[in-house]
Amino acid sequence: MAVRIDLNISLDGFATTTDGTPDDPIGKDWWRLVAPYVATRTVRARVFQETEGRGTTGVDDRYAQEYFAEVGAEIMGAGMFGLHAHPNDPEWRGWWGEEPPFGFPVFVLTHSERSTLEMKGGTTFHFLSATPADALALAIDAAQGKDVRVGGGATVAREFLKAGLVDRLHVGITPILLGRGIRLWDDLRGLESGYTVTTETAESGVVHLTFER
Amino acid sequence: MAVRIDLNISLDGFATTTDGTPDDPIGKDWWRLVAPYVATRTVRARVFQETEGRGTTGVDDRYAQEYFAEVGAEIMGAGMFGLHAHPNDPEWRGWWGEEPPFGFPVFVLTHSERSTLEMKGGTTFHFLSATPADALALAIDAAQGKDVRVGGGATVAREFLKAGLVDRLHVGITPILLGRGIRLWDDLRGLESGYTVTTETAESGVVHLTFER
Repeated sequence: MAVRIDLNISLDGFATTTDGTPDDPIGKDWWRLVAPYVATRTVRARVFQETEGRGTTGVDDRYAQEYFAEVGAEIMGAGMFGLHAHPNDPEWRGWWGEEPPFGFPVFVLTHSERSTLEMKGGTTFHFLSATPADALALAIDAAQGKDVRVGGGATVAREFLKAGLVDRLHVGITPILLGRGIRLWDDLRGLESGYTVTTETAESGVVHLTFER
Repeated sequence: MAVRIDLNISLDGFATTTDGTPDDPIGKDWWRLVAPYVATRTVRARVFQETEGRGTTGVDDRYAQEYFAEVGAEIMGAGMFGLHAHPNDPEWRGWWGEEPPFGFPVFVLTHSERSTLEMKGGTTFHFLSATPADALALAIDAAQGKDVRVGGGATVAREFLKAGLVDRLHVGITPILLGRGIRLWDDLRGLESGYTVTTETAESGVVHLTFER
Protein backbone atom coordinates (compact mmCIF):
# COMPACT_ATOMS: atom_id res chain seq x y z
CA MET A 1 0.00 0.00 0.00
CA ALA A 2 1.35 3.39 -0.99
CA VAL A 3 -0.04 6.91 -0.82
CA ARG A 4 0.38 8.43 -4.26
CA ILE A 5 -0.06 11.70 -6.09
CA ASP A 6 -0.16 11.89 -9.89
CA LEU A 7 -0.55 15.32 -11.41
CA ASN A 8 0.02 17.27 -14.59
CA ILE A 9 1.76 20.58 -14.04
CA SER A 10 2.95 23.32 -16.35
CA LEU A 11 6.58 24.31 -16.66
CA ASP A 12 5.84 27.24 -14.39
CA GLY A 13 4.42 24.87 -11.79
CA PHE A 14 0.66 25.30 -12.05
CA ALA A 15 -1.27 22.13 -11.24
CA THR A 16 -4.71 23.72 -10.91
CA THR A 17 -6.00 26.13 -13.52
CA THR A 18 -8.19 29.09 -12.67
CA ASP A 19 -9.60 30.37 -15.96
CA GLY A 20 -12.93 28.56 -15.67
CA THR A 21 -16.11 30.58 -16.19
CA PRO A 22 -19.81 29.73 -15.74
CA ASP A 23 -20.01 29.00 -19.48
CA ASP A 24 -16.75 27.03 -19.55
CA PRO A 25 -16.25 25.77 -16.00
CA ILE A 26 -13.15 23.68 -16.72
CA GLY A 27 -11.43 26.32 -18.83
CA LYS A 28 -9.01 26.20 -21.75
CA ASP A 29 -5.86 26.19 -19.60
CA TRP A 30 -6.80 22.84 -18.10
CA TRP A 31 -7.23 21.17 -21.48
CA ARG A 32 -3.88 22.55 -22.65
CA LEU A 33 -2.23 21.33 -19.45
CA VAL A 34 -3.55 17.78 -19.71
CA ALA A 35 -3.49 17.49 -23.52
CA PRO A 36 -0.62 14.92 -23.71
CA TYR A 37 -2.27 12.86 -20.95
CA VAL A 38 -5.72 13.06 -22.51
CA ALA A 39 -4.17 11.99 -25.83
CA THR A 40 -3.07 8.62 -24.43
CA ARG A 41 -4.84 5.42 -25.36
CA THR A 42 -5.40 4.63 -21.69
CA VAL A 43 -7.19 7.90 -20.90
CA ARG A 44 -9.19 7.75 -24.15
CA ALA A 45 -10.48 4.35 -23.05
CA ARG A 46 -10.77 4.83 -19.30
CA VAL A 47 -12.11 8.37 -19.04
CA PHE A 48 -13.71 8.98 -22.42
CA GLN A 49 -15.02 5.43 -22.92
CA GLU A 50 -13.61 5.21 -26.43
CA THR A 51 -13.53 1.63 -27.63
CA GLU A 52 -11.61 2.09 -30.89
CA GLY A 53 -8.18 1.87 -29.27
CA ARG A 54 -7.18 5.35 -30.37
CA GLY A 55 -4.52 7.41 -28.62
CA THR A 56 -0.79 7.50 -28.00
CA THR A 57 1.00 4.43 -26.72
CA GLY A 58 4.43 5.73 -25.66
CA VAL A 59 5.90 6.96 -22.38
CA ASP A 60 2.90 9.16 -21.54
CA ASP A 61 0.60 6.16 -21.89
CA ARG A 62 2.74 4.07 -19.59
CA TYR A 63 2.33 6.71 -16.87
CA ALA A 64 -1.39 6.92 -17.61
CA GLN A 65 -1.62 3.17 -17.04
CA GLU A 66 0.20 3.58 -13.73
CA TYR A 67 -2.23 6.35 -12.82
CA PHE A 68 -5.09 3.89 -12.89
CA ALA A 69 -3.29 0.82 -11.57
CA GLU A 70 -3.69 -0.55 -8.05
CA VAL A 71 -5.69 2.34 -6.61
CA GLY A 72 -8.28 1.41 -3.99
CA ALA A 73 -9.44 4.84 -2.81
CA GLU A 74 -8.96 8.49 -3.65
CA ILE A 75 -8.96 11.76 -1.76
CA MET A 76 -9.70 14.97 -3.64
CA GLY A 77 -10.45 18.59 -2.92
CA ALA A 78 -13.81 20.28 -3.36
CA GLY A 79 -12.49 22.14 -6.43
CA MET A 80 -11.47 18.97 -8.20
CA PHE A 81 -14.91 17.48 -7.64
CA GLY A 82 -16.43 20.68 -9.04
CA LEU A 83 -18.00 22.25 -5.96
CA HIS A 84 -16.27 25.59 -6.55
CA ALA A 85 -17.54 25.77 -10.13
CA HIS A 86 -21.03 24.66 -9.06
CA PRO A 87 -21.41 26.11 -5.55
CA ASN A 88 -25.19 26.43 -5.58
CA ASP A 89 -26.10 23.14 -7.17
CA PRO A 90 -27.02 20.53 -4.56
CA GLU A 91 -27.56 18.01 -7.38
CA TRP A 92 -23.97 18.27 -8.73
CA ARG A 93 -22.51 14.78 -9.13
CA GLY A 94 -18.97 15.55 -10.37
CA TRP A 95 -17.44 16.08 -13.80
CA TRP A 96 -17.37 12.44 -14.82
CA GLY A 97 -20.96 11.47 -15.58
CA GLU A 98 -22.97 8.67 -13.99
CA GLU A 99 -20.15 6.09 -14.30
CA PRO A 100 -16.96 7.86 -13.15
CA PRO A 101 -13.57 6.32 -13.99
CA PHE A 102 -12.74 5.47 -10.38
CA GLY A 103 -14.55 2.30 -9.36
CA PHE A 104 -13.69 2.78 -5.68
CA PRO A 105 -14.50 5.10 -2.76
CA VAL A 106 -13.59 8.76 -3.30
CA PHE A 107 -13.34 11.11 -0.32
CA VAL A 108 -14.08 14.73 -1.21
CA LEU A 109 -12.75 17.26 1.29
CA THR A 110 -15.30 20.00 1.82
CA HIS A 111 -16.75 22.02 4.66
CA SER A 112 -20.25 21.80 3.18
CA GLU A 113 -22.37 18.81 4.15
CA ARG A 114 -23.45 16.63 1.26
CA SER A 115 -24.98 13.17 1.08
CA THR A 116 -22.90 10.25 -0.12
CA LEU A 117 -23.33 9.56 -3.85
CA GLU A 118 -23.41 5.99 -5.08
CA MET A 119 -22.46 6.02 -8.75
CA LYS A 120 -22.36 3.26 -11.35
CA GLY A 121 -19.28 1.12 -11.66
CA GLY A 122 -18.32 1.04 -7.99
CA THR A 123 -17.51 4.70 -7.38
CA THR A 124 -18.86 6.20 -4.16
CA PHE A 125 -18.34 9.87 -3.37
CA HIS A 126 -18.09 10.64 0.34
CA PHE A 127 -17.98 14.26 1.51
CA LEU A 128 -16.17 15.17 4.67
CA SER A 129 -14.34 17.89 6.53
CA ALA A 130 -11.14 16.38 7.92
CA THR A 131 -7.42 16.92 8.33
CA PRO A 132 -5.17 15.25 5.75
CA ALA A 133 -4.13 12.60 8.28
CA ASP A 134 -7.71 11.80 9.31
CA ALA A 135 -8.94 11.68 5.72
CA LEU A 136 -6.02 9.43 4.84
CA ALA A 137 -6.83 7.00 7.65
CA LEU A 138 -10.37 6.63 6.29
CA ALA A 139 -9.11 6.19 2.74
CA ILE A 140 -6.48 3.61 3.70
CA ASP A 141 -9.16 1.60 5.41
CA ALA A 142 -11.45 1.88 2.39
CA ALA A 143 -8.68 0.92 -0.05
CA GLN A 144 -8.39 -2.58 1.46
CA GLY A 145 -4.68 -2.89 0.90
CA LYS A 146 -4.51 -1.09 -2.43
CA ASP A 147 -2.95 2.34 -2.98
CA VAL A 148 -4.57 5.59 -1.93
CA ARG A 149 -4.34 8.36 -4.50
CA VAL A 150 -4.48 11.99 -3.48
CA GLY A 151 -6.02 13.26 -6.68
CA GLY A 152 -5.64 17.00 -6.31
CA GLY A 153 -6.00 19.85 -6.87
CA ALA A 154 -2.77 21.65 -6.18
CA THR A 155 -3.73 22.90 -2.73
CA VAL A 156 -4.80 19.50 -1.42
CA ALA A 157 -1.77 17.78 -2.93
CA ARG A 158 0.56 20.31 -1.30
CA GLU A 159 -1.11 19.85 2.09
CA PHE A 160 -0.51 16.09 1.96
CA LEU A 161 3.09 16.59 0.80
CA LYS A 162 3.76 19.12 3.54
CA ALA A 163 2.34 16.72 6.11
CA GLY A 164 4.79 14.04 4.94
CA LEU A 165 1.98 11.63 4.06
CA VAL A 166 2.93 10.85 0.45
CA ASP A 167 5.04 7.85 -0.61
CA ARG A 168 5.17 8.56 -4.31
CA LEU A 169 4.67 11.79 -6.25
CA HIS A 170 4.58 11.68 -10.03
CA VAL A 171 4.22 14.87 -12.04
CA GLY A 172 4.03 15.11 -15.79
CA ILE A 173 5.48 18.51 -16.63
CA THR A 174 3.84 19.83 -19.80
CA PRO A 175 6.30 22.24 -21.47
CA ILE A 176 3.98 25.22 -21.59
CA LEU A 177 3.86 28.38 -19.49
CA LEU A 178 0.39 29.14 -18.14
CA GLY A 179 1.32 32.18 -16.08
CA ARG A 180 -1.72 31.71 -13.83
CA GLY A 181 -3.34 29.11 -11.64
CA ILE A 182 -2.39 27.43 -8.36
CA ARG A 183 1.18 26.22 -7.99
CA LEU A 184 2.02 22.78 -6.71
CA TRP A 185 5.49 23.61 -5.41
CA ASP A 186 4.94 26.61 -3.16
CA ASP A 187 6.27 26.23 0.35
CA LEU A 188 7.78 22.77 -0.19
CA ARG A 189 11.46 23.63 0.23
CA GLY A 190 13.57 20.52 0.72
CA LEU A 191 10.79 18.05 -0.16
CA GLU A 192 13.24 16.08 -2.31
CA SER A 193 15.40 15.15 0.69
CA GLY A 194 13.09 12.34 1.75
CA TYR A 195 12.78 10.88 -1.75
CA THR A 196 14.66 9.38 -4.66
CA VAL A 197 13.97 11.59 -7.66
CA THR A 198 13.94 10.23 -11.21
CA THR A 199 13.10 11.92 -14.50
CA GLU A 200 12.13 10.66 -17.94
CA THR A 201 11.17 12.52 -21.10
CA ALA A 202 8.21 11.41 -23.21
CA GLU A 203 7.87 11.63 -26.98
CA SER A 204 5.38 14.46 -26.44
CA GLY A 205 7.97 16.60 -24.66
CA VAL A 206 6.36 16.00 -21.28
CA VAL A 207 8.94 15.47 -18.52
CA HIS A 208 7.85 12.77 -16.09
CA LEU A 209 9.32 13.32 -12.67
CA THR A 210 8.87 10.85 -9.83
CA PHE A 211 9.63 11.34 -6.14
CA GLU A 212 9.66 7.95 -4.43
CA ARG A 213 10.60 6.94 -0.93
CA MET B 1 24.50 35.28 -34.34
CA ALA B 2 21.94 34.30 -31.73
CA VAL B 3 20.81 35.87 -28.48
CA ARG B 4 20.98 33.17 -25.83
CA ILE B 5 20.10 32.55 -22.22
CA ASP B 6 21.55 29.62 -20.26
CA LEU B 7 20.41 29.25 -16.66
CA ASN B 8 20.13 26.74 -13.88
CA ILE B 9 16.74 26.74 -12.19
CA SER B 10 15.22 24.70 -9.42
CA LEU B 11 12.18 22.51 -9.92
CA ASP B 12 10.11 25.26 -8.36
CA GLY B 13 11.48 27.74 -10.89
CA PHE B 14 14.00 29.78 -8.94
CA ALA B 15 16.92 31.01 -11.08
CA THR B 16 18.30 33.55 -8.62
CA THR B 17 18.83 32.66 -4.99
CA THR B 18 18.34 35.13 -2.19
CA ASP B 19 19.89 33.58 0.90
CA GLY B 20 23.20 35.43 0.66
CA THR B 21 24.50 37.19 3.76
CA PRO B 22 27.45 39.57 4.32
CA ASP B 23 29.48 36.58 5.57
CA ASP B 24 28.34 34.28 2.76
CA PRO B 25 27.30 36.58 -0.09
CA ILE B 26 26.60 33.85 -2.64
CA GLY B 27 24.69 31.65 -0.23
CA LYS B 28 24.18 27.91 0.07
CA ASP B 29 21.10 27.77 -2.16
CA TRP B 30 23.13 28.92 -5.16
CA TRP B 31 25.71 26.21 -4.74
CA ARG B 32 23.01 23.56 -4.43
CA LEU B 33 21.28 24.91 -7.52
CA VAL B 34 24.38 24.85 -9.71
CA ALA B 35 26.00 21.74 -8.20
CA PRO B 36 25.54 19.47 -11.26
CA TYR B 37 26.81 22.25 -13.54
CA VAL B 38 29.79 23.06 -11.29
CA ALA B 39 30.60 19.33 -11.22
CA THR B 40 31.25 19.21 -14.98
CA ARG B 41 34.72 18.92 -16.40
CA THR B 42 34.13 22.04 -18.51
CA VAL B 43 33.21 24.27 -15.57
CA ARG B 44 35.99 22.83 -13.39
CA ALA B 45 38.46 23.86 -16.09
CA ARG B 46 36.92 27.10 -17.34
CA VAL B 47 35.70 28.70 -14.12
CA PHE B 48 37.82 27.05 -11.43
CA GLN B 49 41.00 26.79 -13.50
CA GLU B 50 41.50 23.14 -12.62
CA THR B 51 43.98 21.53 -14.94
CA GLU B 52 43.63 17.91 -13.83
CA GLY B 53 40.69 17.17 -16.10
CA ARG B 54 38.37 16.31 -13.21
CA GLY B 55 34.62 16.49 -13.43
CA THR B 56 31.65 14.84 -15.11
CA THR B 57 31.67 14.27 -18.86
CA GLY B 58 28.07 13.35 -19.66
CA VAL B 59 25.02 15.30 -20.77
CA ASP B 60 25.54 18.10 -18.25
CA ASP B 61 29.05 18.64 -19.56
CA ARG B 62 27.83 18.86 -23.14
CA TYR B 63 25.53 21.71 -22.12
CA ALA B 64 28.35 23.33 -20.16
CA GLN B 65 30.47 23.26 -23.31
CA GLU B 66 27.64 24.91 -25.23
CA TYR B 67 27.40 27.53 -22.50
CA PHE B 68 30.90 28.71 -23.30
CA ALA B 69 30.89 28.15 -27.06
CA GLU B 70 30.60 30.94 -29.62
CA VAL B 71 29.77 33.75 -27.19
CA GLY B 72 31.14 37.19 -28.14
CA ALA B 73 29.50 39.40 -25.50
CA GLU B 74 27.35 39.10 -22.40
CA ILE B 75 24.71 41.18 -20.69
CA MET B 76 24.11 40.69 -16.98
CA GLY B 77 22.26 42.35 -14.14
CA ALA B 78 23.83 44.23 -11.28
CA GLY B 79 23.01 41.39 -8.89
CA MET B 80 24.83 38.80 -10.99
CA PHE B 81 27.92 40.99 -11.07
CA GLY B 82 27.69 41.33 -7.29
CA LEU B 83 26.68 44.97 -6.87
CA HIS B 84 23.73 44.07 -4.62
CA ALA B 85 25.95 42.01 -2.33
CA HIS B 86 28.65 44.70 -2.32
CA PRO B 87 26.70 47.96 -2.64
CA ASN B 88 29.22 50.18 -0.88
CA ASP B 89 32.41 48.86 -2.42
CA PRO B 90 33.58 51.00 -5.36
CA GLU B 91 36.51 48.62 -5.80
CA TRP B 92 34.35 45.54 -6.38
CA ARG B 93 35.48 43.74 -9.54
CA GLY B 94 33.03 40.85 -9.75
CA TRP B 95 32.96 37.31 -8.32
CA TRP B 96 35.42 35.82 -10.77
CA GLY B 97 38.85 37.15 -9.76
CA GLU B 98 41.28 39.07 -11.95
CA GLU B 99 40.90 36.72 -14.95
CA PRO B 100 37.15 36.09 -15.33
CA PRO B 101 35.96 33.19 -17.51
CA PHE B 102 34.45 35.41 -20.19
CA GLY B 103 37.18 36.72 -22.47
CA PHE B 104 34.84 39.22 -24.14
CA PRO B 105 32.93 42.43 -23.33
CA VAL B 106 30.37 42.13 -20.53
CA PHE B 107 27.66 44.77 -20.14
CA VAL B 108 26.41 45.12 -16.58
CA LEU B 109 23.01 46.78 -16.25
CA THR B 110 23.02 49.18 -13.31
CA HIS B 111 21.76 52.63 -12.46
CA SER B 112 24.96 53.44 -10.58
CA GLU B 113 27.83 54.91 -12.57
CA ARG B 114 31.02 52.89 -12.53
CA SER B 115 34.19 53.01 -14.58
CA THR B 116 34.87 50.32 -17.16
CA LEU B 117 37.03 47.48 -15.81
CA GLU B 118 39.68 45.94 -18.04
CA MET B 119 40.42 42.46 -16.68
CA LYS B 120 42.97 39.87 -17.68
CA GLY B 121 42.13 37.44 -20.47
CA GLY B 122 40.09 39.80 -22.62
CA THR B 123 37.14 40.46 -20.32
CA THR B 124 35.95 44.07 -20.10
CA PHE B 125 33.12 45.03 -17.75
CA HIS B 126 31.05 47.97 -18.96
CA PHE B 127 28.39 49.49 -16.68
CA LEU B 128 25.33 51.10 -18.14
CA SER B 129 21.71 51.97 -17.56
CA ALA B 130 19.77 50.95 -20.66
CA THR B 131 16.64 49.20 -21.89
CA PRO B 132 17.02 45.54 -22.90
CA ALA B 133 16.83 46.48 -26.59
CA ASP B 134 19.44 49.24 -26.29
CA ALA B 135 21.82 47.10 -24.25
CA LEU B 136 21.39 44.30 -26.76
CA ALA B 137 22.27 46.58 -29.68
CA LEU B 138 25.54 47.48 -27.95
CA ALA B 139 26.29 43.84 -27.14
CA ILE B 140 25.54 42.63 -30.67
CA ASP B 141 27.95 45.21 -32.01
CA ALA B 142 30.61 44.18 -29.49
CA ALA B 143 30.15 40.46 -30.21
CA GLN B 144 31.37 40.87 -33.79
CA GLY B 145 29.13 38.20 -35.25
CA LYS B 146 29.28 35.80 -32.34
CA ASP B 147 26.39 35.05 -29.97
CA VAL B 148 25.25 37.38 -27.22
CA ARG B 149 24.48 35.71 -23.93
CA VAL B 150 22.05 37.24 -21.46
CA GLY B 151 23.69 35.84 -18.36
CA GLY B 152 21.09 36.57 -15.71
CA GLY B 153 19.88 36.88 -13.05
CA ALA B 154 16.27 35.83 -13.23
CA THR B 155 14.87 39.34 -13.46
CA VAL B 156 17.11 40.40 -16.33
CA ALA B 157 16.54 37.14 -18.20
CA ARG B 158 12.77 37.51 -17.85
CA GLU B 159 12.88 41.08 -19.14
CA PHE B 160 14.70 39.98 -22.29
CA LEU B 161 12.31 37.05 -22.78
CA LYS B 162 9.26 39.28 -22.32
CA ALA B 163 10.67 41.73 -24.86
CA GLY B 164 10.95 38.89 -27.40
CA LEU B 165 14.69 39.40 -27.80
CA VAL B 166 15.89 35.85 -27.12
CA ASP B 167 16.55 33.25 -29.82
CA ARG B 168 17.50 30.35 -27.57
CA LEU B 169 16.75 29.67 -23.94
CA HIS B 170 18.35 26.71 -22.22
CA VAL B 171 17.53 25.88 -18.62
CA GLY B 172 19.01 23.07 -16.61
CA ILE B 173 16.32 22.16 -14.09
CA THR B 174 17.96 20.86 -10.93
CA PRO B 175 15.48 18.50 -9.21
CA ILE B 176 15.43 20.30 -5.88
CA LEU B 177 12.85 22.57 -4.31
CA LEU B 178 14.35 25.80 -2.98
CA GLY B 179 11.11 27.44 -1.88
CA ARG B 180 12.67 30.92 -2.11
CA GLY B 181 14.49 33.14 -4.54
CA ILE B 182 13.49 34.90 -7.77
CA ARG B 183 11.50 32.91 -10.29
CA LEU B 184 12.39 32.81 -13.96
CA TRP B 185 8.93 31.95 -15.27
CA ASP B 186 6.70 34.60 -13.72
CA ASP B 187 4.59 36.54 -16.15
CA LEU B 188 5.74 34.62 -19.25
CA ARG B 189 2.46 32.98 -20.22
CA GLY B 190 2.57 31.59 -23.76
CA LEU B 191 6.33 32.06 -24.21
CA GLU B 192 6.59 28.58 -25.74
CA SER B 193 4.40 29.51 -28.72
CA GLY B 194 7.29 31.21 -30.52
CA TYR B 195 9.73 28.36 -29.93
CA THR B 196 10.38 24.70 -30.50
CA VAL B 197 10.79 23.11 -27.07
CA THR B 198 12.99 20.07 -26.51
CA THR B 199 13.90 18.24 -23.32
CA GLU B 200 16.67 15.87 -22.33
CA THR B 201 17.50 14.24 -19.01
CA ALA B 202 21.09 14.10 -17.75
CA GLU B 203 22.70 11.35 -15.69
CA SER B 204 22.61 13.73 -12.72
CA GLY B 205 18.82 14.00 -12.87
CA VAL B 206 18.98 17.52 -14.28
CA VAL B 207 16.38 18.10 -16.99
CA HIS B 208 17.76 20.19 -19.83
CA LEU B 209 15.05 22.14 -21.56
CA THR B 210 15.68 24.23 -24.66
CA PHE B 211 13.42 26.79 -26.29
CA GLU B 212 14.70 27.54 -29.78
CA ARG B 213 13.25 29.59 -32.58
